[in-house]
Amino acid sequence: MLESLGRSARQAARTLARTSTEQRNRAVNAIADALIEERAAILSANAADMRAAREAGVKEALLDRMLLTSARLEAIAADVRTVAALPDPLNVVFERGVLPNGLRVEKIRVPIGVIGVIYEARPNVTADVAALCLKAGSAVILRGGSDILRSATALIHAIQRGLERVDLPPTCIQLIDDPDRERVRELLTLDQYVDMIIPRGGAGLHEFCRRNATIPVITGGIGVCHAYVDHTAPIEQVVPIIVNAKVQRPSVCNALDTLLVERAAAQRVLPRVAAALAEHDVELRCAPEALAIIKADCEPEWRVLPASDADWGQEFLALVLSIRIVDGLDAALDHIATYSTGHSETILSRDNAAIERFLHEVDSAAVYANASTRFTDGAQLGLGAEIAVSTQKLHARGPMALAELTSYKWVIRGDGHVRE
Amino acid sequence: MLESLGRSARQAARTLARTSTEQRNRAVNAIADALIEERAAILSANAADMRAAREAGVKEALLDRMLLTSARLEAIAADVRTVAALPDPLNVVFERGVLPNGLRVEKIRVPIGVIGVIYEARPNVTADVAALCLKAGSAVILRGGSDILRSATALIHAIQRGLERVDLPPTCIQLIDDPDRERVRELLTLDQYVDMIIPRGGAGLHEFCRRNATIPVITGGIGVCHAYVDHTAPIEQVVPIIVNAKVQRPSVCNALDTLLVERAAAQRVLPRVAAALAEHDVELRCAPEALAIIKADCEPEWRVLPASDADWGQEFLALVLSIRIVDGLDAALDHIATYSTGHSETILSRDNAAIERFLHEVDSAAVYANASTRFTDGAQLGLGAEIAVSTQKLHARGPMALAELTSYKWVIRGDGHVRE
Repeated sequence: MLESLGRSARQAARTLARTSTEQRNRAVNAIADALIEERAAILSANAADMRAAREAGVKEALLDRMLLTSARLEAIAADVRTVAALPDPLNVVFERGVLPNGLRVEKIRVPIGVIGVIYEARPNVTADVAALCLKAGSAVILRGGSDILRSATALIHAIQRGLERVDLPPTCIQLIDDPDRERVRELLTLDQYVDMIIPRGGAGLHEFCRRNATIPVITGGIGVCHAYVDHTAPIEQVVPIIVNAKVQRPSVCNALDTLLVERAAAQRVLPRVAAALAEHDVELRCAPEALAIIKADCEPEWRVLPASDADWGQEFLALVLSIRIVDGLDAALDHIATYSTGHSETILSRDNAAIERFLHEVDSAAVYANASTRFTDGAQLGLGAEIAVSTQKLHARGPMALAELTSYKWVIRGDGHVRE
Repeated sequence: MLESLGRSARQAARTLARTSTEQRNRAVNAIADALIEERAAILSANAADMRAAREAGVKEALLDRMLLTSARLEAIAADVRTVAALPDPLNVVFERGVLPNGLRVEKIRVPIGVIGVIYEARPNVTADVAALCLKAGSAVILRGGSDILRSATALIHAIQRGLERVDLPPTCIQLIDDPDRERVRELLTLDQYVDMIIPRGGAGLHEFCRRNATIPVITGGIGVCHAYVDHTAPIEQVVPIIVNAKVQRPSVCNALDTLLVERAAAQRVLPRVAAALAEHDVELRCAPEALAIIKADCEPEWRVLPASDADWGQEFLALVLSIRIVDGLDAALDHIATYSTGHSETILSRDNAAIERFLHEVDSAAVYANASTRFTDGAQLGLGAEIAVSTQKLHARGPMALAELTSYKWVIRGDGHVRE
């Protein structure tokens, strides 16, 4: 059923691969224009999604993620224009040389081709993904959550109007508008036409994609993030970093989940950290030794509980932190190797040898010294925009932006060269 | 059942990630030494495999691929030493910068972790893969064809002795020694422990891996390769290139499968090319127009046949070439877009505009101008060694060597940095 969608995406990708930087920038800006021009239709479709979701009893936090307003739509259009202004990732020669036999060899950045993106409730993803993929010269097949189908359809309609205005096929950006979940499975096996799948959503979606796809999938987004504090770490940095990593935005993947404290630092660090977190209503789930220290001078209203086994390796996505005292760096590295999802981990220390070992040995997409884990984000790390955060090791790791949406090819120029 | 293999590979990968360049080089050289020292055991195991294969009626070409001799084993050991001498791909900082907030950011090459390699009848792959992965800091789980199980077991035994001698865990390189095909399926879903799968074999193996793996798979190795000759191409280059691309080693993936000739060049080019190919007993399967021209001055002993639909998009792996006349560059590009597997294609021309369009628009791992497709190979392109040729677009495309066996991580150093 998705066969014809796939075929036209592949065709559109061939057209896109021939466009100039200027044409693609013009197309991205045309999308931004069209989003503003079609504001009325988009907001009215979103209002219908919101009504249906409210009637279905969807929770307030999710409703807020679904909501589009005039101001939000303008912000989305502005983000799209930001993408247009980024440097073109394509046609960059990143390696070149001449072989002893005279063959001239270049490796050059080229589009991926067709990218499938499966996302959940955020309608802004529709426009973000369209802009990034188009800029990177790839066609996209989008599959949004059924809760926002009307919104996504209206957004895609506007985007396609924008594409037509600059003489690009509207099939550069297509939406699967059948809410049947079977279509997701179909998209995941459309390997004849689709080169890459990016899921944007929770652990369940990523797992489903990994199990069912015959197309390479970028998995990620799930972060069980650790901080390790040793006895050399200055308390005036420890408290703000732990608080920031935990409370600044607890619902996201780079928020802190587990605090590991070196035994020699525990008496000094834990009461201060616990008090600061208590001010933000963070629930602390503590291993016995940490529990004893924190309980010793704990105010009655603090939420301090014993940790269960399930509290290690859990992504809380809420104001909850698990805390454990460890013997030292080796024990911290072991804990992280066992429970981390390979997203973001940080060491707070003044001991350079310990810092370098931590940065070298922790096998995560982003490893930090003396900084909050909350910086694992394309915009924060200076990439301008981000399509996803990868926690797998192939192709791209950590924040993925335009460069990570490209492939490369070998271009080899000879003059009658044959192999001996 | 492979669970414990996976767990020990993961553990070995942690050890490997902490080794120095010098330790890993020493380990690779120790493998080479051990292969020579255990020559008698390896050759005797191979002799047993050969006897069993002959009794089972395995074909001569395959038998030759299975065979180890003292000289071949020495060549394998020499190849292993070549890998030891290549530059270390790990711990290279390939991007660095300081963000406006003072965070110092580096992107650095790190090991993949655990790599699963599934291969068929060539016992030398056992040693090649072990050397490359070890050099790149990853542990390996190998699964060889059941025809060479005794040989592979003896090779792995030697390799593990080499590892022990330099105090590395033998579990850095493990072999699945159960010939049951169910183990392949199990390896493909061992996603908790394995980071990447590399199949080395025919189209069937690649397809099986893509369908069944929950781990990222590097697919490739299947090449339906095209040459396009336009009216500006000098015949003194056309004939040697086409002959080289087709006959120098017809059984490999970068050998030529289809020749497309611009109509304006056909009368001049086709008889000369056909005559040269006929000298090498190449069978020509020709579309009607090409057939008419070639038949017109064809010697009776030439093998010239009408092409069927199945001859386009077919990887012959034999002395067979399909030939078609096309209107010009656009038609050639359309044919290639339809039938290519994205491996290697070449244009023979003196028209720079046509050459640049071809190199830009053909969406293959390697695109050539005025050269044989036979250069798509790690050693030929100066990579020193090769683990596979990828025809997919994620992670690595074309010949894969040490750099393509690495991942990267973001290393971020702050001084109390928190996100605003």
